[in-house]
Amino acid sequence: MNIHPMWGKYPELAKELNNTLKLMESTVNLKNKDVEQAVMSMIHSGGKLLRPAYQLLFSRFGEQRDPKKAVALAAAIELLHTATLIHDDIVDEADIRRSLPTIRSQFGNSTAVYAGDYLFVSCFKLLADYSSSLKSIQLNSRSMEKILSGELGQMDNRYNVDMTIEKYLENISGKTAELFSLSCFVGAYESGTSERFAKNCGKIGESIGIAFQIIDDVLDYTQSPEQIGKPVLEDVRQGVYSLPLLYALEEGRDTLLPYLEKGEALTNSETDKIYELVHSFGGVAKAQKLAEKYTQQALKGIDRLPDTTDAKQQLLSITQAILARTN
Amino acid sequence: MNIHPMWGKYPELAKELNNTLKLMESTVNLKNKDVEQAVMSMIHSGGKLLRPAYQLLFSRFGEQRDPKKAVALAAAIELLHTATLIHDDIVDEADIRRSLPTIRSQFGNSTAVYAGDYLFVSCFKLLADYSSSLKSIQLNSRSMEKILSGELGQMDNRYNVDMTIEKYLENISGKTAELFSLSCFVGAYESGTSERFAKNCGKIGESIGIAFQIIDDVLDYTQSPEQIGKPVLEDVRQGVYSLPLLYALEEGRDTLLPYLEKGEALTNSETDKIYELVHSFGGVAKAQKLAEKYTQQALKGIDRLPDTTDAKQQLLSITQAILARTN
Repeated sequence: MNIHPMWGKYPELAKELNNTLKLMESTVNLKNKDVEQAVMSMIHSGGKLLRPAYQLLFSRFGEQRDPKKAVALAAAIELLHTATLIHDDIVDEADIRRSLPTIRSQFGNSTAVYAGDYLFVSCFKLLADYSSSLKSIQLNSRSMEKILSGELGQMDNRYNVDMTIEKYLENISGKTAELFSLSCFVGAYESGTSERFAKNCGKIGESIGIAFQIIDDVLDYTQSPEQIGKPVLEDVRQGVYSLPLLYALEEGRDTLLPYLEKGEALTNSETDKIYELVHSFGGVAKAQKLAEKYTQQALKGIDRLPDTTDAKQQLLSITQAILARTN
Repeated sequence: MNIHPMWGKYPELAKELNNTLKLMESTVNLKNKDVEQAVMSMIHSGGKLLRPAYQLLFSRFGEQRDPKKAVALAAAIELLHTATLIHDDIVDEADIRRSLPTIRSQFGNSTAVYAGDYLFVSCFKLLADYSSSLKSIQLNSRSMEKILSGELGQMDNRYNVDMTIEKYLENISGKTAELFSLSCFVGAYESGTSERFAKNCGKIGESIGIAFQIIDDVLDYTQSPEQIGKPVLEDVRQGVYSLPLLYALEEGRDTLLPYLEKGEALTNSETDKIYELVHSFGGVAKAQKLAEKYTQQALKGIDRLPDTTDAKQQLLSITQAILARTN
C-alpha cells in the first residue's frame, strides 16, 4: 500500500495521506470478503488523493488543528469520492478504471450499487464521528446534493449536440468542483478558521476543481488509451460531450454531427477521426486556454493567503503541478 | 396526496404523517423534472409510512417534543427507506412495486442509481438540519451501515439452499428490523427521553421489524399477485429464499431442490408448485408461528411503557393491526 510518488517531496503531507489511506481501509469492514477486497483494490488503485491533500493543507491555516481529526475528515471526503466513482461506473457501463476492472464488471451492477451505498454511509459515519458541529454535516449534505444534481444534469444532456459551454461548466461545477471546494472549505473551517476565511478557501477549491476537470477532459484527446487507463473517447460513445468537443462543434458542426449521431455504434476508426477533428477545429487548444484561466484564478487566490504556514507554498507548487499535468 | 386510510382512526398522528409526506415532497428538488416526478410518485405510491408513524408515536414519550422536529426526522427515515427501495429494485431487477412501474423500469438503472443516492443525501440533510446533536447522526450512520451489510449479506446467500434460519433472521435484522429499531429509538431519544429508555424503544422496534418482515415473506405465499402488486414468488426466481421456504426445505428438501435448482428458468407453473409445496410441508404455518412470537415480544414491550401518553394505546392497537395483516 503506497501513496502516489508525487507526494514524496512533502514528507509531512505524505505521512498524513498514508494515515488517510489506512483509516479508509480500517473503516471498510464487510462480511462479504470478495466485495471488501474489490472496494480495497479500488481504494488502492493509485488515485492521487488530491481532495484529501487539499483538505489537509487547508487545515493548516486553522489554529485548532487536530491532526487525527484532519485525517479522518480527509478520509471521509475520499470515501465519498470513491462511492461516486463506483456508482458512476454503473451509469457509464465502464469495465475499466485506472487500468483495473471496475466493481460492476467484476461483481455485477447489484454489488456495485450496495458497495457504493456502503461507502456513502462510511463517509457519513466518519463525518459524524469527527466533525465538531452539526454545521459541517449540514454543509457536507448540501455539497453532496449539488454533486448528485450535477450527475443527474449530465445524464440529462447525454447525446445533446446543442449543449452549451455554460451548461458544461455548470455540470462540472456540481460533478467535480463541488467536492474540491468542500475539501478546501472543510479543511479550513474544521481547524478553526473563520467561516469567511473558509469560504474563500472553498472558492479557491472551486477554481481548482473546474481547471482539474477541464484538464481531465482535455487528456482524453491528448493521451493514448494505455495512458488514460480506459478506451479512447468511450465518453463520446456514451453521449457525454466534454469541453474540447463542444468547442470543436462551434467551428465544425456539420463535419462532426454525422459521427456523433452514430452514438454507441461508433467504430474505433470513427472515434479516431473525431479525435483528429476535435484537434483540427481548435477544440483542444481552446479548452486548454480555459483551463489556464481557472488555474490562474486558483493560484492568485492561494497567493493571497497568509504566510503563516508553509502550506501556502505547498499549495502553490502542488496546484501548479497538477494543473500542468499531461497524464 | 393522501396517506393510507389505516391512519384515519388517529387524527393527531394522521395530521403529522400528512406533514411528513409534505416535507418529503418539498425536500426533493431536482432539475430533471421526469426523475423528480418518478421520485414523487414513489413517495406517493401508497406506502403505509409505518416507520414515520412509529417514530412520531415514540417521540410522544419525551418531555422536549418539538412537533416540527419530530416530523422532519420522520421524513428523513422515510426518505432513507425510499432510497433503499429504489436501489433494491435495481438489484432485484424489479419492474413493478406497489403495482406501479419502478424507477429503473421507467428510466433505466442509471437514473435509479443517482435517484436513490439523491434520497440518501436528502435524508442526511434533514437529519443534519434537525437533529439536536451529532450523536443522532452517529447512530443513524451506524444503522445505515448495518442495513447495507444486511443487503450485501442477503446477496451473498442468493441461491443458497443451505441457508439457515439463523442466517435469515440475521439478514432481516439488518435489512428491515434495523430501520424500525432506529425509528423508535430516534423518536424517543430526540424528544428528550433518557438514552436507556430510548434503547428500550429501539428493542421494541426491532421485534416489530422482524415480525413485520416475516409476515411480509409469508404474504408471498398467501396472496394473489394482484394483492402483492408483483409477480408470484419472483424472489424465489431471483434466489432469495425466505422463511416459509426455508422451513419447508427442512421437511421436504428432496422434493423442493429440483425446482430451486432451475433458478431464473422457473416457469409459472413451477412456481405455483413451489407455492403449494411450501404450504404442504408446513413452511407457512411455522413462519406464522415465529412471527407471532416476535409480535408478542413487541406487544409485551409496549405494554410495559409508561401510561403518560395515549401513544401507548395507539402503539398497541397499531402494532396488533399491522402484525395481524393479511394484505
